[in-house]
Amino acid sequence: MEGFAADPSHPRYASLLMRHRLEVAAKRGMLADSAMIAHGRGEAFDYMLGEQTTPNARHAAQHALVCLEQAARPILSLNGNVTALACDEMLLLADHLNCPLEVNIFYRTPERMEALLSFIEERRQVLDLEVKVLGASPDAMIPGLKGPRAACTREGIFESDVMLVPLEDGDRCQALVNMGKTVIVIDLNPLSRSAQQATITVVDELSRSLNTMLAFAQEERRAVDAYDHQANLKASLAWIADAVNR
Amino acid sequence: MEGFAADPSHPRYASLLMRHRLEVAAKRGMLADSAMIAHGRGEAFDYMLGEQTTPNARHAAQHALVCLEQAARPILSLNGNVTALACDEMLLLADHLNCPLEVNIFYRTPERMEALLSFIEERRQVLDLEVKVLGASPDAMIPGLKGPRAACTREGIFESDVMLVPLEDGDRCQALVNMGKTVIVIDLNPLSRSAQQATITVVDELSRSLNTMLAFAQEERRAVDAYDHQANLKASLAWIADAVNR
Repeated sequence: MEGFAADPSHPRYASLLMRHRLEVAAKRGMLADSAMIAHGRGEAFDYMLGEQTTPNARHAAQHALVCLEQAARPILSLNGNVTALACDEMLLLADHLNCPLEVNIFYRTPERMEALLSFIEERRQVLDLEVKVLGASPDAMIPGLKGPRAACTREGIFESDVMLVPLEDGDRCQALVNMGKTVIVIDLNPLSRSAQQATITVVDELSRSLNTMLAFAQEERRAVDAYDHQANLKASLAWIADAVNR
Repeated sequence: MEGFAADPSHPRYASLLMRHRLEVAAKRGMLADSAMIAHGRGEAFDYMLGEQTTPNARHAAQHALVCLEQAARPILSLNGNVTALACDEMLLLADHLNCPLEVNIFYRTPERMEALLSFIEERRQVLDLEVKVLGASPDAMIPGLKGPRAACTREGIFESDVMLVPLEDGDRCQALVNMGKTVIVIDLNPLSRSAQQATITVVDELSRSLNTMLAFAQEERRAVDAYDHQANLKASLAWIADAVNR
């Protein structure tokens, strides 16, 4: 990663790498003002999860991948933090699913959209993938939302049946669920409105959970148990409670 | 507060006000790169505490105030986030204690020191207080630390016996304890190294805990129970565990 010189054996390497990616993204104008604060909140929850993928998070990620694979019109949605933290993984997942990405940000400005789209295009070329990237020309609205945050693309988010939308705002998550979609959220806070309202929630750090999905995509023989949303959230809360009680 | 127009009856008013103060401070060059991430981590813990001052946090704050009042040479230390979030409260507390403030930052640059000192001076004049502000000319070193983060002022931090140092780094907290000082930390994470190593830890949001101290300073009749550090941290953890289990 450009300009990042930390030792991979450092116990906080993964965490420092994510911070570095956010700093690079901030300099390029990709992030909202609240991006760093949101990331810090996630860090606190990850700290309590032991910075590890829990068994229930692994199961949720595997189940989410199968849902995306079986979808008629899957879509992967990227906001500023998702693009900064895990652009490559999102591109690789879209390539595996043969589906488009859509840039969809809460605080939409032409400058941020351009910064995000050009970053993704750079990474797409580096990885040499044929992934379609939507978002530059929204032509539909998510019902129940107001203003620029409602804007989306008809052939992407609007007509999708299964949607991966990591680190999503609670109101927008609810609006997407109300559209009848299967909404897959990745969120470190199992108590957040997005985590609660989504169809499937992976309570895990973003890049870890995407890598869990990408690894599972390569497995030949798979068996995924049924997914119980409330049981999954409860299991994540139990991990946090355990950490606090120890 | 300049440019802050949120409705005080908004359920997230206090949280939004703190974010606004950080944004103002960032524009003035007062903050380290990691300031927003650190604040977000604190927000996550405050969320789990229910954004309230727990009974044990109130007790710790009251006990801390009494220790500062009884000190021979009390000192209040401010870093970037403390100055941004609670400069007025720190000035008012220093005025009550008739002690100096010292600006003492982990990532010391002349520009940040100047930005912090000039902000504090502005607020001191607005509040019309005779508080002495140290930090511009360090002339001593905290033993056991290396580089600019060891710098401090002899008549302030170095020779103090009781020190309030909110939101402190773990290494520096340990070094200050090793100097034999009574070190009072304010930290929302009861598991942090600073929270564990301090003599007294107030597990509470910064401005709430300082306002608890300032209110207690005005009370005529006081009774403060003995302080048990481990019991205090355990009680804060129990509040978080309760929130997670509900």
